[in-house]
Amino acid sequence: GLKDATDTVIQLAQTHKPKPDPNGLVFGTVFTDHMLTIEWSLEEGWQKPHIQPFGNLSIHPGCSALHYAVQLFEGMKAYRGPDNKVRLFRSMINMKRMLKSAHRACLPSFDCAELLECIRKLVEVDQDWVPHSDSASLYIRPTFLGTEPTLGVKKPNKALLFVILSPVGSYFSMGAKPVSLWADSKYIRAWRGGTGDCKMGGNYGASIYAQYEAVDYGCQQVLWLYGDDHQITEVGTMNLFLYWINEKGEEELATPPLDGIILPGVTRQSILELARKWGEFKVSERYLTMADLRQALEENRVREMFGSGTACVVSPVDRILYQGENLHIPCEGSLPPLASRLLKELTDIQYGQTPSDWSCIV
Amino acid sequence: GLKDATDTVIQLAQTHKPKPDPNGLVFGTVFTDHMLTIEWSLEEGWQKPHIQPFGNLSIHPGCSALHYAVQLFEGMKAYRGPDNKVRLFRSMINMKRMLKSAHRACLPSFDCAELLECIRKLVEVDQDWVPHSDSASLYIRPTFLGTEPTLGVKKPNKALLFVILSPVGSYFSMGAKPVSLWADSKYIRAWRGGTGDCKMGGNYGASIYAQYEAVDYGCQQVLWLYGDDHQITEVGTMNLFLYWINEKGEEELATPPLDGIILPGVTRQSILELARKWGEFKVSERYLTMADLRQALEENRVREMFGSGTACVVSPVDRILYQGENLHIPCEGSLPPLASRLLKELTDIQYGQTPSDWSCIV
Repeated sequence: GLKDATDTVIQLAQTHKPKPDPNGLVFGTVFTDHMLTIEWSLEEGWQKPHIQPFGNLSIHPGCSALHYAVQLFEGMKAYRGPDNKVRLFRSMINMKRMLKSAHRACLPSFDCAELLECIRKLVEVDQDWVPHSDSASLYIRPTFLGTEPTLGVKKPNKALLFVILSPVGSYFSMGAKPVSLWADSKYIRAWRGGTGDCKMGGNYGASIYAQYEAVDYGCQQVLWLYGDDHQITEVGTMNLFLYWINEKGEEELATPPLDGIILPGVTRQSILELARKWGEFKVSERYLTMADLRQALEENRVREMFGSGTACVVSPVDRILYQGENLHIPCEGSLPPLASRLLKELTDIQYGQTPSDWSCIV
Repeated sequence: GLKDATDTVIQLAQTHKPKPDPNGLVFGTVFTDHMLTIEWSLEEGWQKPHIQPFGNLSIHPGCSALHYAVQLFEGMKAYRGPDNKVRLFRSMINMKRMLKSAHRACLPSFDCAELLECIRKLVEVDQDWVPHSDSASLYIRPTFLGTEPTLGVKKPNKALLFVILSPVGSYFSMGAKPVSLWADSKYIRAWRGGTGDCKMGGNYGASIYAQYEAVDYGCQQVLWLYGDDHQITEVGTMNLFLYWINEKGEEELATPPLDGIILPGVTRQSILELARKWGEFKVSERYLTMADLRQALEENRVREMFGSGTACVVSPVDRILYQGENLHIPCEGSLPPLASRLLKELTDIQYGQTPSDWSCIV
């Protein structure tokens, strides 16, 4: 079971798919030759992990993951360094977040270290799929489903944890492209007493409609607001940072606090820790409202705004459509200085160019 | 395609499962011999409906229904009358609600009448599974999934609509059992700008954790509150009704309005319409807070409180645990007079004992 990754049963694929140039790929459209599956049941607990050829899952049509979204996922990456070694980045944080999501979804607990070891084995089996590149990578998607085959809305007695791998290109392969945001309180991503701080599927499916409305308004992504004071919370599927001179005249890098409606992003945490280590300006987890932002823009106090996430590391913002008005955010050279510095420091760690205990060889 | 149910391809099962006594069954645990599946793709639109042997679905592990809860469902029933005819109850309302959920989930549109005709055919094929009973029935579960096999959070280019059938016993086969509720604002079921008025899977999976906390507090279900004034919204997976003498001294049957956070239940709508037709007391869609309820209980103005849904029709409430205090709701004879009268009028229509255009022969 999941108490011992050494039990993993490996069945190798008979044929191997051709490996595409990841820089030409749309995110998450090509998968590797193998996947990891681990079944759980209330009676028997965790079964042996299986690494097996990538293929369709056989799922009961009454499965609780399909009817009641008893499901969650994670997102992380494997990077190939100039030394040809493959590394994971702070992957234990993903495991712990996954465990927290599992608790909220009423899915069973698991041993984080053993699951990570199973994932490591899977990446090892498909290591040739980790791109030889200093900007492409292999995206790792752990997924955890309730597979209870009955229609009662309840804690599932069966579950399936599986992991699939997808080679992905550099987010900035065509150059940095700042994003424009639609800020409106018509749709709310997450709320107190909900599941916004867990990586549960329902948070994402419910967001797609708003994303298309943003596009109808000529913007690329949604800036998610919350509350009557229009707090700035997240952007699209990313955390959000504002680098500015705050209302007290202090130079500050700010992001909303983890108060239950914010996803605790690994990149978010890493940016906060890096910037705090630099000690060059104030680094805050604090509330930011649209009124704060608008006033700061009027007073020329905003330096940069960017999203953060596993896919892009950082994604600069250059425009926000809010209450019929376009707010222009400074975005010098498409990838402004702080975003650019964070991108470099983080990717240097991820690709093993800077030694760090955040990076771990597979 | 879904424009023409006459295209339905029927492949009959070679073997037939034994039909259990539905009154001994746990809800949604036994399924019939057949299911309906209809595939859709952006390029080819709706494919021919298939009625085929009940069995597992083959699902791509990157499927958007599994990762991002791009999924929704419906719940309705087929009833066998004393004339041995099988009837559906107001099923076009379910089809229209399903279409609304599909829109919110970014799943494709369909022709409601044609889908209902496909479901009618499925029930016809499995008609022997509709219990010979004046209280058991055949539960019908339409489900609609995004089957996009890629990891981008976007409108799916592939989808699967399927329908499964499950014989279910009488909710009151062991006698009416009033339920106790845990009322706390720690968990919020739905919020404005979310998906609470659609039957999307994410609403349900996110609710399970709170249900177990209710049990820890010695209650059976959650009374979902909303807002700083602790508005009463829904109970468990049901709508909620309060029958009382309101603050103006009027006899009133009240349920929260469809303001975006309430599921528009078919039973809810039917109770409102029946009670309005009777014209014996005021019937209101209005806000109700815990303070309103507590004051009315102190002043002895509460007559009944009950949940409403397809499974139970009505489910009386006898106790609410709120802020550490047990509020006792009158619940004369386990199934009090108004709940009892509504149960009888509605089931008489459902089983064809009272002629009504709400009921339709399969």
